[in-house]
Amino acid sequence: MMKMSGNVMVGQSGGPTAVINSSLVGVYKTAKDLGASIVYGMLNGVQGLLNERYVDLSEHIQSDLDIELLKRTPSSFLGSCRFKLPEPEIGNQIFQQIFKTLEKLDVRYFFYIGGNDSMDTIKKLSDYAEMIQSSICFMGVPKTIDNDLDITDHTPGFGSAAKYIASITKEIIRDGLVYDLDSVTIIEIMGRNAGWLAGAAALAKGEDCEGPDMIFLPEVEFDMDQFIEKVRKLQETKRSVVIAVSEGIRLADGRYVAELGTELGAEDAFGHKILTGAATYLSREISRRIGCKSRAIEFNTLQRCASHIVSRVDITEAFQVGGAAVKAAMEGETGKMVILKRVSEDPYICVTDTFDVHKIANVEKKVPRNWINEAGDFVTEEFEHYVRPLIQAELTPMMVDGLPRHLTLKDKAHGK
Amino acid sequence: MMKMSGNVMVGQSGGPTAVINSSLVGVYKTAKDLGASIVYGMLNGVQGLLNERYVDLSEHIQSDLDIELLKRTPSSFLGSCRFKLPEPEIGNQIFQQIFKTLEKLDVRYFFYIGGNDSMDTIKKLSDYAEMIQSSICFMGVPKTIDNDLDITDHTPGFGSAAKYIASITKEIIRDGLVYDLDSVTIIEIMGRNAGWLAGAAALAKGEDCEGPDMIFLPEVEFDMDQFIEKVRKLQETKRSVVIAVSEGIRLADGRYVAELGTELGAEDAFGHKILTGAATYLSREISRRIGCKSRAIEFNTLQRCASHIVSRVDITEAFQVGGAAVKAAMEGETGKMVILKRVSEDPYICVTDTFDVHKIANVEKKVPRNWINEAGDFVTEEFEHYVRPLIQAELTPMMVDGLPRHLTLKDKAHGK
Repeated sequence: MMKMSGNVMVGQSGGPTAVINSSLVGVYKTAKDLGASIVYGMLNGVQGLLNERYVDLSEHIQSDLDIELLKRTPSSFLGSCRFKLPEPEIGNQIFQQIFKTLEKLDVRYFFYIGGNDSMDTIKKLSDYAEMIQSSICFMGVPKTIDNDLDITDHTPGFGSAAKYIASITKEIIRDGLVYDLDSVTIIEIMGRNAGWLAGAAALAKGEDCEGPDMIFLPEVEFDMDQFIEKVRKLQETKRSVVIAVSEGIRLADGRYVAELGTELGAEDAFGHKILTGAATYLSREISRRIGCKSRAIEFNTLQRCASHIVSRVDITEAFQVGGAAVKAAMEGETGKMVILKRVSEDPYICVTDTFDVHKIANVEKKVPRNWINEAGDFVTEEFEHYVRPLIQAELTPMMVDGLPRHLTLKDKAHGK
Repeated sequence: MMKMSGNVMVGQSGGPTAVINSSLVGVYKTAKDLGASIVYGMLNGVQGLLNERYVDLSEHIQSDLDIELLKRTPSSFLGSCRFKLPEPEIGNQIFQQIFKTLEKLDVRYFFYIGGNDSMDTIKKLSDYAEMIQSSICFMGVPKTIDNDLDITDHTPGFGSAAKYIASITKEIIRDGLVYDLDSVTIIEIMGRNAGWLAGAAALAKGEDCEGPDMIFLPEVEFDMDQFIEKVRKLQETKRSVVIAVSEGIRLADGRYVAELGTELGAEDAFGHKILTGAATYLSREISRRIGCKSRAIEFNTLQRCASHIVSRVDITEAFQVGGAAVKAAMEGETGKMVILKRVSEDPYICVTDTFDVHKIANVEKKVPRNWINEAGDFVTEEFEHYVRPLIQAELTPMMVDGLPRHLTLKDKAHGK
């Protein structure tokens, strides 16, 4: 069997997900299994690397139990950053600094777990490596709850966020039925430009749940008057109406619905604009124009860190893309991202492949218009068929004293 | 063995919990096992009963699998109400109506699952029964996430809410560590007058988590300037500060912190006051006065309906108090509520007993001052020792097609 020579550097970048550490484990374990000497983890992505902040991962992952715990640990284990590299140019100090550190550490393989922006980093580093004829391989490992990376069938992180969203949407729909009162609940779901996560609320629908009554995605212009009319109509036959909206829905003129409350003049006493959020604004408008009880629920940060309920398909694939990146790099691939290819619909089977990162970086994949119904207020069956396999099965959290146990960095890497 | 004669009526009232249906199952199964002919469930509590809205529960719970599903189903299966009975008086129409229906259905035992207000209903109905010399027994079954019922060691529903709060607090603390930036996260937890739920955030603390940095309960006056000073101090040594506050924290003059944003003049264009919530207000003040990144996260409705992560201790006790109510009623007890008595601390053992509902109804149990530290910004170890046993162990959801399965009423009882 081929063996890896030299060392590995791995980092995490952009927003976290519930399974981002499963990809880290995939890189770490595969590299170790293939003979890598040291697997370094950069702290806070390339930003930390620039300040020579990194750890030897074997000091922090010391057993198979640690590996299992790390898979179940939400939020980037190594910390993250939002750092945009400049265009690569020979002589550029930032690139010189990064490559100096990598060479000093005898790093031959570099892995970056992230989304669009992180792939831009892989693109630039691999371009720079080519310019200076460095043999270091740079591979991207896909990750984002937003599912907006191009070429890959979907992104690790999305399935667990979708499972969480669908699960709590079911619970909230039930909660809405408790009182014998007319009410409208607006749930706000992450996704500024792509409606993949908001669409996932549709999965709540099943034998034991009607699902949300409408779903609005940022891919379709939002019409306020039509919206109120539709709510009014639903209320004629339903006591409890539940509507999912993406945080990024916009009016025809391009303004975010989330901004409307602000534009209408809401300010605190110090003149700070109050951003109400799309759901809060819509909920208030419903109370005002229809006169019924209405509440807004923001699904907030937990969409990206609820590791207490993850999809096993997702966490497994997150591991696989990490491992596949290592194998590809060992075979000399660079400037590429690992992608998932769905080779069978039923039964669902996905395999990994690699793809030129230049064609992926900075591109946002949106929900195709034909996966949204004509009225623009729900996703189609095709959409549901696409997402449903990604939320299947569970990975039981390791519970200690009543709570899910996580793995933490051994030293106080989180202090100041 | 003694057998129950006649029929049973059971209802759910007030805010739901993740385990309220386990108590319903406890009443149903125990009554059936003890020979009750028909167990009726009133729809939307006494309010529904007044309109003769009820179901024969055996038509909706048809198998042992249904029983297990119902235990795992969040939110009141039978619907709920917030209905205050008038003072009982012979000749009062409301009481006449209720007793006419109960007699028509040959109901001998009446169970009401709820909190303070619901116990007021049991008190009045049992008083009225005594006035008219009815032999129907009225028993209260405790339930509330708020844990504010007196006499009982704790209330079913609280443990699961506490487990959910502690679990997601851990996840949010990790999420706050992702970026290499100073930030303050304020989490807002339910509990308008009692801080039991906010205090439960302390349980996040453990070998793998520092826990929140401060916790503010409604039992202690909140001082805005002191708060800002404390945050400033924490920031000197910590990158990510996480603070839990009860929605009900108040200033010395009695005003809710949640109202302050409003009082300072925030209004939308239509002159409606905007209630910001305590966390949003504090987060904004931190940004303004300290100048660092700050975010507010409201734990919202899921605190009372997150059945995907419940405490097994809690769901078991919820079942037990339902069953104990049936046994007590069969032995002729009336006008009482089932209570939990902690007979051993270590190992934790609770047993059931009954107590005069007149001394429980309308009383709010608060967190004792000596279970809050002197500075008023955290709970003590005693508090943690009290709550920790209540969040132990899990009850695995029954997952179907990737999502937790629930039991629903067979007919369209939820339509209009």
